[in-house]
Amino acid sequence: MTAQIPTQATGQILGFLGGTGPQGRGLAARFALASHQVLLGSRDAARGQEVAAEVAAQTGRAVSGGANEDVARSADIAFVVLPYAAQADTLAPLADALAGTLVVNCVNHMVFDDGGPYAPGVAAGSAAQECAELLPRSVVVSAFHDISARALGRLDTPMDAHVLICGDDDAAKERVIALAGEIPGLRGVDCGPLRMSRSVEDLTPVLLHINKRYGTHASLKISGL
Amino acid sequence: MTAQIPTQATGQILGFLGGTGPQGRGLAARFALASHQVLLGSRDAARGQEVAAEVAAQTGRAVSGGANEDVARSADIAFVVLPYAAQADTLAPLADALAGTLVVNCVNHMVFDDGGPYAPGVAAGSAAQECAELLPRSVVVSAFHDISARALGRLDTPMDAHVLICGDDDAAKERVIALAGEIPGLRGVDCGPLRMSRSVEDLTPVLLHINKRYGTHASLKISGL
Repeated sequence: MTAQIPTQATGQILGFLGGTGPQGRGLAARFALASHQVLLGSRDAARGQEVAAEVAAQTGRAVSGGANEDVARSADIAFVVLPYAAQADTLAPLADALAGTLVVNCVNHMVFDDGGPYAPGVAAGSAAQECAELLPRSVVVSAFHDISARALGRLDTPMDAHVLICGDDDAAKERVIALAGEIPGLRGVDCGPLRMSRSVEDLTPVLLHINKRYGTHASLKISGL
Repeated sequence: MTAQIPTQATGQILGFLGGTGPQGRGLAARFALASHQVLLGSRDAARGQEVAAEVAAQTGRAVSGGANEDVARSADIAFVVLPYAAQADTLAPLADALAGTLVVNCVNHMVFDDGGPYAPGVAAGSAAQECAELLPRSVVVSAFHDISARALGRLDTPMDAHVLICGDDDAAKERVIALAGEIPGLRGVDCGPLRMSRSVEDLTPVLLHINKRYGTHASLKISGL
């Protein structure tokens, strides 16, 4: 089956791979409200359809869902919103489907122990660089790692954050910066080449510590812009 | 020789080890203006005195300078504002002088190549954790890594940033959070245990990329606090 594409939306087709978690739902809902065509993918096509129906009900926009592979084939821009542990197994078989596609990697590798969350590191340097290795014929941009999934999910509250964006392809990076700016209260900020993504990804556990300590849903802003 | 301690200041004695660079000068000047007794240390005692005289002239406050070891012995709180390459050689011989002292590590390990600045990593996990290993009888708190030295140096302009602070000793961390808040426009934010310092230190090259791209002196703020 091919993921159904809603017809009343006007923007680009944005696919969310592994989009049934809080980050995928939140981004999908925000971009649906920004008039993009949104496709929610899951390992399990029925689960993708089910969550898509929930996001459609929440936003009043048509949102479709299906299997990750169908979403990957249909998307103009594919967001990787998987848990890190699922990234390699999910993306490797999608390398053909995603060839030539702009891929936005939003994955954080975090582990938890008695000291709370921390970033144990990724052999490739970062989750985004690993994604680029898994998808050698795609253009990968790193973004949205630092944005609170909880805050994204509160659709009645505007965001208030900068999206730190890294990538080696300037045109692709500009597209993602523009896209980030379509969500009210977000602004995309160019943070340099893809290898800078480790620094950005590794901030997420810091934000979780701040959330716990101060009882908030912290995001980042750059002062001086 | 023992570093001279100015008498008209009222606060704690803050020592800056390797304090003759932009970060050391900037923090020393801001804390002198906040009525702390400030001592500027250098490998070369005469150089420490010379830069202290400059900061004194800039701030209109008494600021003393001398050799790092004398500053280490006199300080209530010692700030490590060295280049990373000098950290191990400078701190190892100061372990006795700094025993029992609260040490604030502000060191960033960065290298530059054709792709710009990046954080190559530190075997101990972070510069702050390495500092703690070098000074086993001191209490080490990580702070001020993310604060622009240039912005600190513009004394007529208030700061506008959050200071991300990590440490394993809660009381020491609270002292440093309070201290950060004495500089107008700064607020200290508890970011969890010392091991989180890597994430904070590694942000500095991201801020440098932003500075270059947007022609600014970027600092961070946490939204949601």
